[in-house]
Amino acid sequence: MEILTEKAEMGVVEQRFDLTVAGEVVPGIRWWPEGAGGPRPTILIGHGGTQHKRVPNVLGLARRFVRHLGYGAVALDAPGHGDRVTDPAAAERQRQALQARLAAGPGGPPRSFDPEEAKEWVERTTKGVAEWKALLGELDAQGGGPYGYWGVSMGTAIGLPFVAQEPRIAAAVLGLAGLSNRPGSDRFEQAARALRVPVLLVLQWDDELVEREQGLALFDAIGSSEKTAHLNPGGHVETPLFERDAYEAFFRRHLGSPR
Amino acid sequence: MEILTEKAEMGVVEQRFDLTVAGEVVPGIRWWPEGAGGPRPTILIGHGGTQHKRVPNVLGLARRFVRHLGYGAVALDAPGHGDRVTDPAAAERQRQALQARLAAGPGGPPRSFDPEEAKEWVERTTKGVAEWKALLGELDAQGGGPYGYWGVSMGTAIGLPFVAQEPRIAAAVLGLAGLSNRPGSDRFEQAARALRVPVLLVLQWDDELVEREQGLALFDAIGSSEKTAHLNPGGHVETPLFERDAYEAFFRRHLGSPR
Repeated sequence: MEILTEKAEMGVVEQRFDLTVAGEVVPGIRWWPEGAGGPRPTILIGHGGTQHKRVPNVLGLARRFVRHLGYGAVALDAPGHGDRVTDPAAAERQRQALQARLAAGPGGPPRSFDPEEAKEWVERTTKGVAEWKALLGELDAQGGGPYGYWGVSMGTAIGLPFVAQEPRIAAAVLGLAGLSNRPGSDRFEQAARALRVPVLLVLQWDDELVEREQGLALFDAIGSSEKTAHLNPGGHVETPLFERDAYEAFFRRHLGSPR
Repeated sequence: MEILTEKAEMGVVEQRFDLTVAGEVVPGIRWWPEGAGGPRPTILIGHGGTQHKRVPNVLGLARRFVRHLGYGAVALDAPGHGDRVTDPAAAERQRQALQARLAAGPGGPPRSFDPEEAKEWVERTTKGVAEWKALLGELDAQGGGPYGYWGVSMGTAIGLPFVAQEPRIAAAVLGLAGLSNRPGSDRFEQAARALRVPVLLVLQWDDELVEREQGLALFDAIGSSEKTAHLNPGGHVETPLFERDAYEAFFRRHLGSPR
């Protein structure tokens, strides 16, 4: 873990680092309260598809967890995202395709995957999980924890299997995802059934990308004895801001306060 | 509104009163912070079937709203409940029938209503709504408000139509109920569609009395632009205690703090 820059803004230290995993550089950011030392609860934040480690939603959440809870937070660029985009034109096409699906509204035809896309999807998840595990190893070596995970949409596609196989994650906010017949779905469902930590699952009732039944089937499949789904009206990117209060209350309940 | 007794316990004033509505005495309780004066946000709490105005759940919620939020709270015995039971043997039979349905688990046959029961159900709702409206008139005459409503199960059967036709209720927690083909269901659905205030709807994923599809259909029908459903595993009387934090956050967001 190579530290690149560090600055403090409005009471929040923001540190850029590079993590090398399987020979590939994974850029990341870590946040914590200015002037604070010692281990503290830390939330790993997984961004959505076409996003990156410092989109407004991720940055806003990280600063909230630091300022309101005294926690640390950390985000990575997912495989093929952010500073890891190798083909900007292809990334822009993907972003526009996603925008078009959102604009088309709910109830559209299920997304089809060509074999190449399917392979990419599975590889991205496998790599993403390995990178989160490597990061956790680094944080743990520095005496961190306890840990929570927050990630919706692609942040759940990668994060749910990660949390399911990672006993150091004590609680997870997931959502904007469901059980489906997309590539890798069997393994995703198995991971959901293997979950044992408390889960808060946010679902959007008019999600253009996830059918109601798929999201509810995911809630049903999750194996944790404590699991709560929050359903709100609106589309995939319209989760109400007040749910951020629910994330905070959820993590405070399960990870406690910094010592 | 006739005041009967008043005592303070652990910072909470508890006042017993009788309200007379259409010639019938409706016993109630009002709670507020000891030593506090002036109007303040007040939550009307509707108890469940076979319960009464001071069952542990109602009392616990009332004291929470008073202690944590500085609010007032008020509860009434619903028609045929609590001090208004006229046939104790029949009430005991109803309580045992409910227990048997809970013990039988989810997925049982839908409850059948004979014509006499159906008539009772509709009359109870109509009376209950009129009594809440009369209470609100009294509170308002004393310069109260703003008002919220909290009531699940029978507290929703009566409370949802009440909130739908009562512009003075600014936000409502409802739940453990659904759309069905029971008597009065058409009017219940119409009332749900007429709701305009923010609603937090709690549903239990393994509710012995409300099928999943019925509860979700109620969420779908609610006309409010801000509505959130919280789904948790477990049966009708197993809503997790941490949802009480969600009720508080919900009311604080919509009713604000006492002046």
